[in-house]
Amino acid sequence: MYNVKTWEHVFKLDPNKEISDQDLEKLCDSGTDAIIVGGTDDVTLDGVLDLLARVRRYTVPVVLEISNLDSITPGFDFYFVPMVLNSNNKEWVMDLQHQAIREYGDIMDWEELFVEGYCILNEDAKAFRHAECNLPDHEDVIAYARMAEHMFKLPIFYMEYSGTYGDEALVEDVKQVLDETRLFYGGGITSPDEAKQMKAHADCIIVGNVIYDNIKSALKTVKAVKDNN
Amino acid sequence: MYNVKTWEHVFKLDPNKEISDQDLEKLCDSGTDAIIVGGTDDVTLDGVLDLLARVRRYTVPVVLEISNLDSITPGFDFYFVPMVLNSNNKEWVMDLQHQAIREYGDIMDWEELFVEGYCILNEDAKAFRHAECNLPDHEDVIAYARMAEHMFKLPIFYMEYSGTYGDEALVEDVKQVLDETRLFYGGGITSPDEAKQMKAHADCIIVGNVIYDNIKSALKTVKAVKDNN
Repeated sequence: MYNVKTWEHVFKLDPNKEISDQDLEKLCDSGTDAIIVGGTDDVTLDGVLDLLARVRRYTVPVVLEISNLDSITPGFDFYFVPMVLNSNNKEWVMDLQHQAIREYGDIMDWEELFVEGYCILNEDAKAFRHAECNLPDHEDVIAYARMAEHMFKLPIFYMEYSGTYGDEALVEDVKQVLDETRLFYGGGITSPDEAKQMKAHADCIIVGNVIYDNIKSALKTVKAVKDNN
Repeated sequence: MYNVKTWEHVFKLDPNKEISDQDLEKLCDSGTDAIIVGGTDDVTLDGVLDLLARVRRYTVPVVLEISNLDSITPGFDFYFVPMVLNSNNKEWVMDLQHQAIREYGDIMDWEELFVEGYCILNEDAKAFRHAECNLPDHEDVIAYARMAEHMFKLPIFYMEYSGTYGDEALVEDVKQVLDETRLFYGGGITSPDEAKQMKAHADCIIVGNVIYDNIKSALKTVKAVKDNN
């Protein structure tokens, strides 16, 4: 489970949302491959530390997806660093990351750090506006995936539809051009069927919002994906 | 010589400048590890093809450093793709590259393609203004080098002082944080002594302008670097 390359299912928890200890235990013991802590709005160090402490009670790997410099803390197994490929602003591509490395470069453990080549594909999402994105067409997304794999040798290419179920045909086509880089899919998975369908194309699916809307459905997505093998 | 990782000395020819057949023969037979064809101003397909045809008569590897989409052509041994890390504009970091991959991704040979993490360090240089750069301080440059090595796994980190002799102490410090990524240095090398001094820190030095100003000095830089071993 500590090899990111083998992950197929991940739950993403938002430090800015409430979750009961009982639900958290169910998620951590569900058989998912990892828990990612990450969000767009008001991610604070307190919120991140609270989730870290609560998830650390279980054996599941726990990842911090870095949203801002203020909420970075040691203690996670891995750190995922988003590089927003379809942003209009270099800030979201590499400048924030550059600032972090300038500050912490001496003490960073590069083995724990994974760059995610992000493509945010829902123009109504907060993350889309926040990261000043433009909406790429089919060919643009394919080209971003190829850049992630061949130019930047990124471990992860992340298609993020935040809150809406994405375009399966596009996910399938992207998978065709990736070999070393793992394809992560996130957005709008609310049922075992959707999980299974998207997992037919992506290497790993991320289940987020449904955790807060319908924990039972969320939990069922794990088995749906793992049974697919 | 066809392994970029072993290169120590390279001549860079500007397709927009004149060079006689006699001088070109001397450069190609000098013992340099490669000839890079590249420039900032008015690089045209005609200029690139002219140099390609003339250099191809010799056995030295020949590289196209891509300046714009219009002047890309097959026939080179390698293609170097600049990613200007200290540009303010995402265009020079990855958008032009994205456009090229969108257009030619299907037919590209990724083995021939090398991304150079460029840091342009002379604020009076045309390339600096052209690529909308900001002048990084010492710590910024170290952090860019670490990004090149660890985040983007780039084969080359290129410190470009275009026309002026650079800061040896900075080049030395950058070398300390690079392991897999090769350190290329370019700018203001006009004599064997300068070549030898900069090569003490950088893995590979690029000799350009002096070719057009003083061919004899230019040729002497090869021996100066190779004797250093």
